This record gives sequence, C-alpha cells and structure tokens, in this order.
Amino acid sequence: MKIGRLNHVGVATPDVEAAARTYRELYGADEASDPIELPKLGVRVIFVRIPNMQIELIEPLGAASPIHKFLEKNPKGGQHHMCFEVPDIVAARDAMRERGATILGTGEPYTGAHGVPVIFVHPKNTGGVLVELMQEPEGEHA
Amino acid sequence: MKIGRLNHVGVATPDVEAAARTYRELYGADEASDPIELPKLGVRVIFVRIPNMQIELIEPLGAASPIHKFLEKNPKGGQHHMCFEVPDIVAARDAMRERGATILGTGEPYTGAHGVPVIFVHPKNTGGVLVELMQEPEGEHA
Repeated sequence: MKIGRLNHVGVATPDVEAAARTYRELYGADEASDPIELPKLGVRVIFVRIPNMQIELIEPLGAASPIHKFLEKNPKGGQHHMCFEVPDIVAARDAMRERGATILGTGEPYTGAHGVPVIFVHPKNTGGVLVELMQEPEGEHA
Repeated sequence: MKIGRLNHVGVATPDVEAAARTYRELYGADEASDPIELPKLGVRVIFVRIPNMQIELIEPLGAASPIHKFLEKNPKGGQHHMCFEVPDIVAARDAMRERGATILGTGEPYTGAHGVPVIFVHPKNTGGVLVELMQEPEGEHA
C-alpha cells in the first residue's frame, strides 16, 4: 500500500464562509463550492480549489461535531488533517492495521465529505498529524 | 495576485529521520531527500515526495529555531504551514500588504528551504494557518 496524491488539506474554522472569503480576497483563490451541510459527519464544509489540490474548510455542525475539540484548543482555526488518495480503501485500512496503525472509530470505511469512502489514522501514528485516506474519486481531479 | 499550486505542507517534528521513516514504512511514501541542514533558517528538513506535492519535514536546529515554540505546544509535531507558489514573490508581498496582511520578519523575501525566495503571512490573517508564499521554482515540479 502506497498513498497517492494529496487530495486536500482540511482546515478547521469557526465560520466556513468567512474563511472562504479570506482565501478569495487575500489569496485570489476564487473557485469555491457552496457551503455543504453534512449532519452525519457533524460538519459544514466549503471546498476551495487550488490548482493541484483542494482546501477543505470545516466548521462544526451540532454539539457532537468532531471539530469542537480542535477549535477549543485553536479558537481561530488551523490545519486539521491531510487527506491522501488510495486506490482501494479496504486494502489500505488492512495495510494500516498490519503496519500497526490505529484507525479511528470502528475502522469501517464510511462516506466522507467528498462522497467516497474514507478512514482516519490516529495522529499518534504520524507524528501528531491526523491523516485521512480516501478512495480515489472517479473522474476529474481537483 | 492569485496563488498557484500548493508546493508543500510543512510538518514540524522533533526528528526528521524518524518522521521520514513513518511516511515510508506506514504510507509507502519512499521517495525522500537526504536530511538538509539550514543553519540560517534554524531547521533541518527532509522533503518527502507525494505525487502532486511534497511534505516538508522540519526539525529545529539551534536554540533560536522558529520550530521550538511550535514543538513546545505540540511535542509530537504536527502541521506547521502550507506553502503556495506565486509567479513573482515581490509582487505577491506587495499585494498581501495592500490587502491588509502582515508579513512576518522584515517583509523582505529571503531564500527558503527550496532555494527560492519566500515570505510568510501571519497566521492571524488566515484563520490560524501560517501561509508561506514561494516564488515558483523553475524546472520540474514535485
């Protein structure tokens, strides 16, 4: 198992619209999705398109959101995770476990914000970095 | 001024060799540079090549290293900055200032770990994210 391209960097923020405005007005990154509410994942997201990847802006949605804890520690927001593509998410999950890594949650891949199955690897396994692995989306890339 | 591709994500770590081993052994990312000491910048770095970008592993070098403070807050390490390419670093610096952003240090572009001039934009301007802007390297991309 070998990771492929970086699909996105996840950036936690208290306000996805304000964050998207910053990337547009300060950095000229003017291609962004509308806000998308994902109640099952406990987040609202906006995808900002960069030529070779995306920035996934993530705002907590609901009291159980996994983003709350991050924003408690970092109230202004910050880099939350890196997401790499893999050709087969189940094979990747199994390889991660064989190599001694801890998969968050049940370990069963579930549909992430991009509509494809994902897993998260515990930050303790990657020097404090939360790593998402995502089944390669079909069709065009960012 | 519009940012171009993401050149790299900077990841702070207490030990670049150990971090590179993790990306190789856990994630199969086996193309990495040798460690590079940059005393003027106060860092040791290893570049790990991902198909569409690089991960810049950064270890503090010397007592004045800018990475010490980050590792005090995050002893295991973590995502430290995102670096985007721009065609003209001086024009980008001027545009950032016109748009109200604060450039770290003197504001004069200086040679970064990739051998091209860079600036850093204060995290307060980008929702807690430290952003590096880098003059586009000539020749082949990561």
